[in-house]
Amino acid sequence: MKLSQRILGLTGGTSDGWELFNKARRMIDDGVAVTELTIGEHDIRTHQSILDAMHRSASAGHTGYAMIPGTNELRDAVAARVFERTGVPTTRDNVLITPGGQSGLFSAHSALCDEGDVALFCDPYYATYPGTIRAVGAVPRAVPCRFENSFEPSFPDIVAKTRDAKTLLVNSPNNPTGVVYSRETMEGIARACCEHDLWCISDEVYDTQVWDGTHISPRTLDGMLDRTLVIGSMSKSHAMTGSRVGWVVGPEPVIKEMINLATHTNYGVPGYIQDAAAFAIESGQPLEDEIGAPFKRRRSLGQAIIAQQNAVGLVPSSGAMYMLLDIRSTGLSGDEFADRLLETHHIAVMPGESFGACAAGHIRVAMTVEDSAFETALHTLVDFAKGVE
Amino acid sequence: MKLSQRILGLTGGTSDGWELFNKARRMIDDGVAVTELTIGEHDIRTHQSILDAMHRSASAGHTGYAMIPGTNELRDAVAARVFERTGVPTTRDNVLITPGGQSGLFSAHSALCDEGDVALFCDPYYATYPGTIRAVGAVPRAVPCRFENSFEPSFPDIVAKTRDAKTLLVNSPNNPTGVVYSRETMEGIARACCEHDLWCISDEVYDTQVWDGTHISPRTLDGMLDRTLVIGSMSKSHAMTGSRVGWVVGPEPVIKEMINLATHTNYGVPGYIQDAAAFAIESGQPLEDEIGAPFKRRRSLGQAIIAQQNAVGLVPSSGAMYMLLDIRSTGLSGDEFADRLLETHHIAVMPGESFGACAAGHIRVAMTVEDSAFETALHTLVDFAKGVE
Repeated sequence: MKLSQRILGLTGGTSDGWELFNKARRMIDDGVAVTELTIGEHDIRTHQSILDAMHRSASAGHTGYAMIPGTNELRDAVAARVFERTGVPTTRDNVLITPGGQSGLFSAHSALCDEGDVALFCDPYYATYPGTIRAVGAVPRAVPCRFENSFEPSFPDIVAKTRDAKTLLVNSPNNPTGVVYSRETMEGIARACCEHDLWCISDEVYDTQVWDGTHISPRTLDGMLDRTLVIGSMSKSHAMTGSRVGWVVGPEPVIKEMINLATHTNYGVPGYIQDAAAFAIESGQPLEDEIGAPFKRRRSLGQAIIAQQNAVGLVPSSGAMYMLLDIRSTGLSGDEFADRLLETHHIAVMPGESFGACAAGHIRVAMTVEDSAFETALHTLVDFAKGVE
Repeated sequence: MKLSQRILGLTGGTSDGWELFNKARRMIDDGVAVTELTIGEHDIRTHQSILDAMHRSASAGHTGYAMIPGTNELRDAVAARVFERTGVPTTRDNVLITPGGQSGLFSAHSALCDEGDVALFCDPYYATYPGTIRAVGAVPRAVPCRFENSFEPSFPDIVAKTRDAKTLLVNSPNNPTGVVYSRETMEGIARACCEHDLWCISDEVYDTQVWDGTHISPRTLDGMLDRTLVIGSMSKSHAMTGSRVGWVVGPEPVIKEMINLATHTNYGVPGYIQDAAAFAIESGQPLEDEIGAPFKRRRSLGQAIIAQQNAVGLVPSSGAMYMLLDIRSTGLSGDEFADRLLETHHIAVMPGESFGACAAGHIRVAMTVEDSAFETALHTLVDFAKGVE
């Protein structure tokens, strides 16, 4: 029996780039003590206070169908948060609550792209992006974000790719690079979108994790308000990865259509999870700072270690939960380096190649183990790089 | 700025048929005491024991990313439940856990239909079906399930619609009719699928609510195992509508591709909700019987009331949470009847027209208020029908 071409072609006929991750999982299952620095999962769990808020809501009876656009309380909390952080007037009518940021990315592309439309994304990229675009029947096209340009997309590199394109997906603070796009970069993105009539889909799920510089949302820039959809999530900012709750912020007419899409594709988000998310947002900045602090701290520890040697280079990591390390001087590809590091030292990192051609010769290190284990792993990694023949 | 044709055409250019529901909501918001018999929402909340299991799981740390196919425990529990109910060997590899049955319906169509493919569904139908089909870029085509055939799809009526069709979506026990398809009907469905090379997508979310006859899953019939995807959910069986947890059961190669699709569209289901669902399933038949009992009881009350008069006819209601009433003798359409009943008596029921052309001249009554209020509402409804000039 035949499946759809859409689903069979989802990963573009290539491997999904997660062999290393899966191999590490199998080793762990076999009892090997692997230091796991692959995925963007906090080493803490969701705060008990948030879980208690969830249980109170559920026990009080918020277990029936929630309103599909999201509860008024959570939509208002997200709108207030966005206004506070960006200064752009935002109301609940600009907000759709989604079952996670990934669902927001999918729904945004579905709202904007028809079969065969070209959807741009920036390389290096979060691993699901091309498949998400293919899942709506659109054609993914990478905009190179070059090492020489600090892994940020340049205006000419975007413009060179705009033929037949409907959308441009950007992600700052960036996964996998940890780069926070500069104002100049964001203005180039805005100019390219306005001059070439592109929608901008801005994945800002790391917006609370900025260690250097300032996060700029393209939605704040001239001409962008009516052509930008912002994807947000509670996953990274509040260590709620498993709760699958996020949002899309955009022009009211688009949100209205996306509510209709949600009715026909997922039927909304559990009300008690939304109540927990509203509680978490209303807990304010201190909680977000507490969640982000370990990554900021470990980044400093990592910078100090990398600064002491020349075998491994550091891409300036200004935000998010990752460091991207340049291992080209070893002569190995990211795939080879990661595989050998896992085999010989039981340290699992992601090959840069998993995140696109532009990250080849790099590895991504998630800063997701406690400080001393993180330092030990980095020292081992550096020594391994030095010893590569 | 242009949106996709897909999203703009989602409801087929017609109204969404839920004006009555929305009007009732507005009246309630304005303080009117409306008897709400519109949607399939239990008048009880999720059992406290299930919510406590959820809280235990979350507090024990199951708050990170869950495995995308679903937890092993829940996949095993669903597989065991399906085997027990149908006798068809089923393992966790045949099961994808989804964020609700609606997401399962969407994912199933996305896995099987490409842009422009024809997807069949049975009319009368659950309101989202055509839009769900359009959301994957496919073309919905209704198979009439005629009043004269007890609202069941006949073999010739299916066959007459199969040109260019890839899938056939069936739903028994049926929403909105309450009909449980007979063995003969299911065998006709199977024969049509086998002879015309169709996938069968079988929405069985009401499978625990059967009051007369026997629920037959098409997956059990000759030639159907490798061409059937079954959609299930905890919503109706366990009063967990708001928890958004369901599943798709099908051939392992299809489930494998659908896991990949889930990675790129929603990234799985909260682990603590899956643990709660596994707890609920493992609580066994008594809990399911307890959840279903009010509907069985109210159906009997309703049958007795309808039997006493001739103004309103009853479609034999063998399962699910609904009664479909024939109000054609009043000379009103379902829309008119429902609107006037709401205006004059503050009783909200769904017009049959919301569920397709075949249900015109009918109204759907959800049996979702406590028994005496349900009886009072039905008496009022019958008196209203008698008094229509």
